[in-house]
Amino acid sequence: MSQPSTGKNTARVLQSSCGEWRSIDVPSCSTKSSNTNSSPKRGNPPDDIVDYAFPKKQLKVHMTDRTNSVTVNRRSVHNSCPMPWFGMDIGGTLVKLVYFEPHNPSPSNNFSQVQTLEEIEFFLKNNETCRKGGGGKDTHLKIKNIYIHGNLGTLHFFHFPTSEMDMFLQSAKSKGMSLLPCTACATGGGAYKFESAFKKEVNMDIHKFDEMDSLLRGIHYIDANYQEECYYFENPVDDKFCEKKVFDFSSPYPYLVVNIGSGVSILSVYAPDCYKRVTGSSLGGGTFLGLCSLLTGCETFEQAIALAEKGESTKVDKLVKDIYGGDYPRFNLQGDTVASSFGNMTCQERRSLVSREDLARATLVTITNNIGSIARMCAVNEGMEHVVFVGNFLRVNPISMKLLAYAMDFWSNGTLKALFLEHEGYFGAVGCVVQLLET
Amino acid sequence: MSQPSTGKNTARVLQSSCGEWRSIDVPSCSTKSSNTNSSPKRGNPPDDIVDYAFPKKQLKVHMTDRTNSVTVNRRSVHNSCPMPWFGMDIGGTLVKLVYFEPHNPSPSNNFSQVQTLEEIEFFLKNNETCRKGGGGKDTHLKIKNIYIHGNLGTLHFFHFPTSEMDMFLQSAKSKGMSLLPCTACATGGGAYKFESAFKKEVNMDIHKFDEMDSLLRGIHYIDANYQEECYYFENPVDDKFCEKKVFDFSSPYPYLVVNIGSGVSILSVYAPDCYKRVTGSSLGGGTFLGLCSLLTGCETFEQAIALAEKGESTKVDKLVKDIYGGDYPRFNLQGDTVASSFGNMTCQERRSLVSREDLARATLVTITNNIGSIARMCAVNEGMEHVVFVGNFLRVNPISMKLLAYAMDFWSNGTLKALFLEHEGYFGAVGCVVQLLET
Repeated sequence: MSQPSTGKNTARVLQSSCGEWRSIDVPSCSTKSSNTNSSPKRGNPPDDIVDYAFPKKQLKVHMTDRTNSVTVNRRSVHNSCPMPWFGMDIGGTLVKLVYFEPHNPSPSNNFSQVQTLEEIEFFLKNNETCRKGGGGKDTHLKIKNIYIHGNLGTLHFFHFPTSEMDMFLQSAKSKGMSLLPCTACATGGGAYKFESAFKKEVNMDIHKFDEMDSLLRGIHYIDANYQEECYYFENPVDDKFCEKKVFDFSSPYPYLVVNIGSGVSILSVYAPDCYKRVTGSSLGGGTFLGLCSLLTGCETFEQAIALAEKGESTKVDKLVKDIYGGDYPRFNLQGDTVASSFGNMTCQERRSLVSREDLARATLVTITNNIGSIARMCAVNEGMEHVVFVGNFLRVNPISMKLLAYAMDFWSNGTLKALFLEHEGYFGAVGCVVQLLET
Repeated sequence: MSQPSTGKNTARVLQSSCGEWRSIDVPSCSTKSSNTNSSPKRGNPPDDIVDYAFPKKQLKVHMTDRTNSVTVNRRSVHNSCPMPWFGMDIGGTLVKLVYFEPHNPSPSNNFSQVQTLEEIEFFLKNNETCRKGGGGKDTHLKIKNIYIHGNLGTLHFFHFPTSEMDMFLQSAKSKGMSLLPCTACATGGGAYKFESAFKKEVNMDIHKFDEMDSLLRGIHYIDANYQEECYYFENPVDDKFCEKKVFDFSSPYPYLVVNIGSGVSILSVYAPDCYKRVTGSSLGGGTFLGLCSLLTGCETFEQAIALAEKGESTKVDKLVKDIYGGDYPRFNLQGDTVASSFGNMTCQERRSLVSREDLARATLVTITNNIGSIARMCAVNEGMEHVVFVGNFLRVNPISMKLLAYAMDFWSNGTLKALFLEHEGYFGAVGCVVQLLET
């Protein structure tokens, strides 16, 4: 048996650990709330919605194998942060950008806020970079009449490929964006990777926040400020009776968050600022698009999804009935259960019979079911009943959402519920703004 | 948001459930052992080795969600079964075939056993079908001087693609195999799928056994009868210091079995005949070969592995440092950790820079790490310290074995040990023979 080196390109599975509890003392946080204008929802007090202000308390913080402790960032209110406020989640594939447009802008430095906002809006909407790779403004997600740190305004949502980040900065520089007064927060890996480029190109000091903290802050903040944010599917794989229904997320704890970006992170959330990272998977949205690009020649996520909508995965996958000739009743595996994803593609004759659409569909189903399977295991082990799936993998992707909804329900005998959120991939970007401004 | 149907090709994740314990009464089993000639190992009494005879007792049997109870098959000794005895594990990709050649054959029906064995040996070794797709005799695995049901003999091992099963039967028919007296047991899905074809083509009634029962019987039987069956790796990803070491498997309980065939099944084993199926994954060896065939044009598993040995997955995968610019220290994710498998392939420029070898390696690493991650979660949740990886995915595949060994050790801080067995994929085939002949 040959024993080739695996050292030269050893790969580790992405953070796949469970651990024990510890209790640590969190620095004192002000309970002050200056926001009497917030728009409470479901009976939450206004100060909870706007500032995420918590009294000093013992926070449960989880220590995972080989991980550092998870503490929730606490910063003072940045009263001096000029508006507009930007939040960016710079991920492995996409930049998710939100900005807060105040309804009552005030003069600031050499520019009025009105002028600044107009310049930025024009830049983001008309910039070629922002429109590449399916990027652009998600107008349908806009949140009007939202209060952030006592200011009433509108939250706007954009996204564009991370691969265009350098071009984006060059373009911002050439349009004189560096002269505009504003405050930018960032999270995701790109907050670190592009920090010096921000400084160099547009003379901007970005406020960096951890992506997991930001994700949870964003989820709770948006859910509290947007009607019908959370939903689930009834009869998810029944064309006729499938129904999208609003879910009351006002008392969500404990719940599992499955954040599907380029890769996958899974968090157990016990309270607004108490969570642990349970595990992760490197098979996420980046895997779907990467494989789909190789197998079908598609260029964008939207193209990949459009192909998948027209394909049939059952031509590509090997099903239980392909192996057993029917069901495998001893373990209740029905004949149409997937036994081996892409298993039929080991045969040249079968390869010649599948289309690009079939391959795209199989890739989507494979990645989705793998995530669903891991999420289900985590939910059972953590004793969770609700699994919230977020991240841009779910963007324009009802196939995956319905598969996840079906899988959670079926394999748990109805004890697990898959939940989804309207602002799928924007919680990190929103959460870092919220964190910066919280007391 | 469009809501396309997912119903037309709805796919389920392969058996992904956990459940509760039940205790059932197992039918009385004889404690008789007629085998005084068995070759005990590590102090096991001979009757344990050869016959798997157990006293009547309460067996713990696991009831899983939506699964039937796991009971261990009990059959009377088939004293009338003519030798040679065949065992076949007819899986989704490969047929694994073992036959027992007695050292002291006796006349039977119209043929002497000697003549029968010569005919069969010649057929299997010289049949084109058996050599297709990398198939053939695994001479290095042959077990000499083994006792089965009181008979001393040699156990031989063959494999060939399941896609050649019809041709194999046609060939057997044309060579007059249907006239030879022998006993055939079968397990795996193909035992059911091809049952009528066996009857029709070679007039053979095959004795069918469940594949999970057979797998475990085979593991315990071979380990008890083959020196140095079980091993592990020390310093698995260090070329210089990597060492394959024998592991004493005489007191293995409880342990986890990860059976990687076309798909993956994971079993928790508590005693020789007490186990449960914990979960499964449809991303297994069939997924690796199917994807690799599509991405590289390779035809066989051996070709795919040979390509992977020369490739670098890090060109294909997106690493933490590709996103963060370095490590993500908060969760102890080092820069060279895979954040998104195939994540770099979303970019046309990066796609143009990778070779077939890189793609094969990335496919292998992706599938392996996913299995490792799921196995690790199961082991932790089940409280197991030993994880035994078996199945033909590991055949000629030290890359995956070392990755699994590394992943188990690293992510558990050394508390989990990955174990491997020399007869990787043959346990089901052996186990069904053992089951047929046991008291």
